[in-house]
Amino acid sequence: MADGDGPRRSAAVGRLPSRIAFLGFGLIGGSIALALREAGYTGSMAGWTPGGKGPAEGARRGLLDAAASTSALAVDGAELVILAGPPLAVLAWLGQSGPNRPTAPASTLTDVASTKGRIVERAEAAGLHFVGGHPMAGRETTGVEGASATLFVDRPWVIVPTAHAREVDLDRVAALAGAVGARPIRMTAAEHDAAVAAISHLPLLAAAALVEAVALSDGSTEDWPVARTLAASGWSDMTRLARGDAEMGAGILDTNRAAVAARLRAYRDALDAWLQALEGASDAAALRSRLEAARDVLGGR
Amino acid sequence: MADGDGPRRSAAVGRLPSRIAFLGFGLIGGSIALALREAGYTGSMAGWTPGGKGPAEGARRGLLDAAASTSALAVDGAELVILAGPPLAVLAWLGQSGPNRPTAPASTLTDVASTKGRIVERAEAAGLHFVGGHPMAGRETTGVEGASATLFVDRPWVIVPTAHAREVDLDRVAALAGAVGARPIRMTAAEHDAAVAAISHLPLLAAAALVEAVALSDGSTEDWPVARTLAASGWSDMTRLARGDAEMGAGILDTNRAAVAARLRAYRDALDAWLQALEGASDAAALRSRLEAARDVLGGR
Repeated sequence: MADGDGPRRSAAVGRLPSRIAFLGFGLIGGSIALALREAGYTGSMAGWTPGGKGPAEGARRGLLDAAASTSALAVDGAELVILAGPPLAVLAWLGQSGPNRPTAPASTLTDVASTKGRIVERAEAAGLHFVGGHPMAGRETTGVEGASATLFVDRPWVIVPTAHAREVDLDRVAALAGAVGARPIRMTAAEHDAAVAAISHLPLLAAAALVEAVALSDGSTEDWPVARTLAASGWSDMTRLARGDAEMGAGILDTNRAAVAARLRAYRDALDAWLQALEGASDAAALRSRLEAARDVLGGR
Repeated sequence: MADGDGPRRSAAVGRLPSRIAFLGFGLIGGSIALALREAGYTGSMAGWTPGGKGPAEGARRGLLDAAASTSALAVDGAELVILAGPPLAVLAWLGQSGPNRPTAPASTLTDVASTKGRIVERAEAAGLHFVGGHPMAGRETTGVEGASATLFVDRPWVIVPTAHAREVDLDRVAALAGAVGARPIRMTAAEHDAAVAAISHLPLLAAAALVEAVALSDGSTEDWPVARTLAASGWSDMTRLARGDAEMGAGILDTNRAAVAARLRAYRDALDAWLQALEGASDAAALRSRLEAARDVLGGR
């Protein structure tokens, strides 16, 4: 933990309840548990996943006190339940009732999934004490084996209040974010989903479509073997997102269709304007001005 | 120089003529000179640029024997002249006649620019002993200060024969590529330009349009300050190309319009299909299959 960051994180740890449960325990869940332990959290943590592998590994490493055999056992007695899976898994968990309900009546429930609108809607319909969460961190690996205690340090952690969230719920989730070194940022589900459509989901589609247009399109398949021998770092950068987990990507797109489609239309319009520019409307100086305008807006980061 | 690579590079150095000139001397020219010296080239090298800064730095570092005050002085007596500038500069140099003609009558002329069609056309019209060249290497820095002796190691170096290129010209340019550690690959100007449109120029436009659609479009400007606070590595990867040299980018696009436009249409079609998929035609499983198909075609590299 960075010097100076410690006191702030320790104070956040002090606001956490003594029992935490994870449904889903991969890269994100594992990194949360690792970061909490490193920040001095001494409470009890239990984890469950459908396959059980991640929690078993977490227990072996001493991150979890228990690898629970059912989700009901994992959440039993937990005051904070973290749904640490991708959007479609979180939606499925939120939809369960009876003994598989993913929370105890007084518990705080939160998640880490990449889209918020449909998840918040379902949690509110179920009357849960739910606070939507999305730590803006990730890496190319998946699974608890890739967990890192510093994954969230200085990264934003979006916090989305919902209809049945109490003050204690909001405070626990903010404490969770602070304890792992992240910066909590409150916004609505709609604000979040529009923002991530822009900076994350549209880029995923832009990368996938680039691969399709270059390497898969009918008219060009025969050029690809030649072109790929020339590919350099620019091509690698622009297609890295297309190498990610397809199941997770599909779940993200599936649960944020309207916001992504709106942004995709704006992207197509920008590309149409480039096409017109190339096909005669713009000389080299005009092309340069347009590239400069795009570069300048990026300047700040 | 890597072990085992040395003998091959030394043999290539032995096929180089004793006098080499550079018109243009920035990152690429400087890296060529540095790599040639490291590979044991002991001939004479002179350089000229319109401003003179790069050659002065090259002479100060002992890479060049002379920072010439005119292009005519630089090429005087040189058996191999390297036009080490971006496409529009190379086109301008090739168009000069009289004392500013960029070559002596018996010399071999080559270039390093990112597009080949218009350059080859102009060199052929001028009756020059020209071999088109394009080392597929680059970095985010520009200028001779960023020069690296290993920039070309194991990278492809495209070689484009032209109408008035003699065997000696082709051999000298292949020797140049080999001496700096690159892998010479022969292709036609049209093959080259189609390939780089796919793996380099379309990605540049995809990055610039992404910035425009997210940060510049009218309807979304107010969202950008929120969205940018959430941006992570995916956004950085997908916009890195848009941070590059706008003048060079414009010159590249300007001299490869037809090939880039053709590929841009294929890209727009792929994005249109994604839009249809998002707006109802595809469920999560279908979205996943499409992402998997794109990921799988990338698999090999």
